[in-house]
Amino acid sequence: MNLALLFDEDFVAPDRVVLRGRRLEHIKSILGAAIGDRLPVGRVNGLMGLGEVISLTNSEAELIIKLDQQPPRPLPLTLILAMPRPKMFRRILQTSATLGIKDIWLINSYKVEKSFWQTPWLSDDNLRENLTLGLEQAKDTAMPRVHIRKLFKPFVEDELPALLEDKEALVAHPGTPTPCPTHLNRPAALCIGPEGGFTPYEVGKLEEAGCQSVHLGPRILRVETAVPVLTSRLFNACL
Amino acid sequence: MNLALLFDEDFVAPDRVVLRGRRLEHIKSILGAAIGDRLPVGRVNGLMGLGEVISLTNSEAELIIKLDQQPPRPLPLTLILAMPRPKMFRRILQTSATLGIKDIWLINSYKVEKSFWQTPWLSDDNLRENLTLGLEQAKDTAMPRVHIRKLFKPFVEDELPALLEDKEALVAHPGTPTPCPTHLNRPAALCIGPEGGFTPYEVGKLEEAGCQSVHLGPRILRVETAVPVLTSRLFNACL
Repeated sequence: MNLALLFDEDFVAPDRVVLRGRRLEHIKSILGAAIGDRLPVGRVNGLMGLGEVISLTNSEAELIIKLDQQPPRPLPLTLILAMPRPKMFRRILQTSATLGIKDIWLINSYKVEKSFWQTPWLSDDNLRENLTLGLEQAKDTAMPRVHIRKLFKPFVEDELPALLEDKEALVAHPGTPTPCPTHLNRPAALCIGPEGGFTPYEVGKLEEAGCQSVHLGPRILRVETAVPVLTSRLFNACL
Repeated sequence: MNLALLFDEDFVAPDRVVLRGRRLEHIKSILGAAIGDRLPVGRVNGLMGLGEVISLTNSEAELIIKLDQQPPRPLPLTLILAMPRPKMFRRILQTSATLGIKDIWLINSYKVEKSFWQTPWLSDDNLRENLTLGLEQAKDTAMPRVHIRKLFKPFVEDELPALLEDKEALVAHPGTPTPCPTHLNRPAALCIGPEGGFTPYEVGKLEEAGCQSVHLGPRILRVETAVPVLTSRLFNACL
């Protein structure tokens, strides 16, 4: 936690917050903060700054805050991801938030196991918690939006074409002849398949909707590795 | 496992191997292979090719192999890493192997907790197992070398200068003014600190040894995210 992210419910006055639970634990145990210390804080979807600890008990910390800095620029990337295996999903969410991705679509694919959609990590509270951990790591405040689409065909036919408008649209597809571009640094949409990849039918449908198939070289990367590798490759100027 | 990595002890004849344990389980349960099926295989530090299943029981699979393809090119990167927290270390090893990094130095730093060096993941067998998992993911055969240096100063003063010869030498250091280069695509050495970063003293010693401090932008990345992000940024032509 390189910054404590503040939510509306933390505020007891316009310049004063009370923190409990995980953030309190971190402030006490990891940072070893004392009264008078100043810690990096930021308001969700708002400014960042410092919070001065004015009281500290076993159950809560109270801070007077001053917010006067803009968060880092968002990445202009729409990430369209076949729903990952639950044990990877949590890390991928956190990493995506840390990297500055603000728009995440979770879609179905033939190789997504039905059980993946049952994971408790998809609840609103758990999505928010993991995205918060990613933002707190990065020192960012802009909460990503996550969209869940459990049917592949209606998403690709009815929603995707509008989503791709004015963007460079790519699908990561090992074995295709075109390498993934570098230094794009302009709005893009990137589709990443499940373990084992999208099926040829699915790649065909994504191409029909406007995506170009690109590869990342001869190595096959896990999804959790492909997300930072592709992001870094496309947006070297924004990271 | 996109390829089964073969070791000397797996060979029962020059063109024939017997697999047990994890690789057998994978072949049966995940790939659902049957007699006559051909699976991607590769010999550690050697060629890749296909293995045809000629017998399959509950305890072993026998394959006739034909190896005729070169593995992907190694990344010309020496990765010098402050020993990570054990729960992250395993993933970082696997990811580094998947990315094609062949030379990994684990070093001490003020913020590396002493207990990190006690992890069983540092045993020879566990290092080999996790690097194998990373190579099998990537479809590569060239086993990375891992060097363990538990004393910072003797390593940096006595070994590092020779290690950096003829390489672009960088230390990732948030807050420094110079951005990390892109498209280097030539031999490089990259130092990445622990959570919380190298101390100013340590950065000074690394600079004395020939490293240049570079930053990755305003976001603070976990080590496990920084490795793929930096690798992708430096070596877009090799990945």
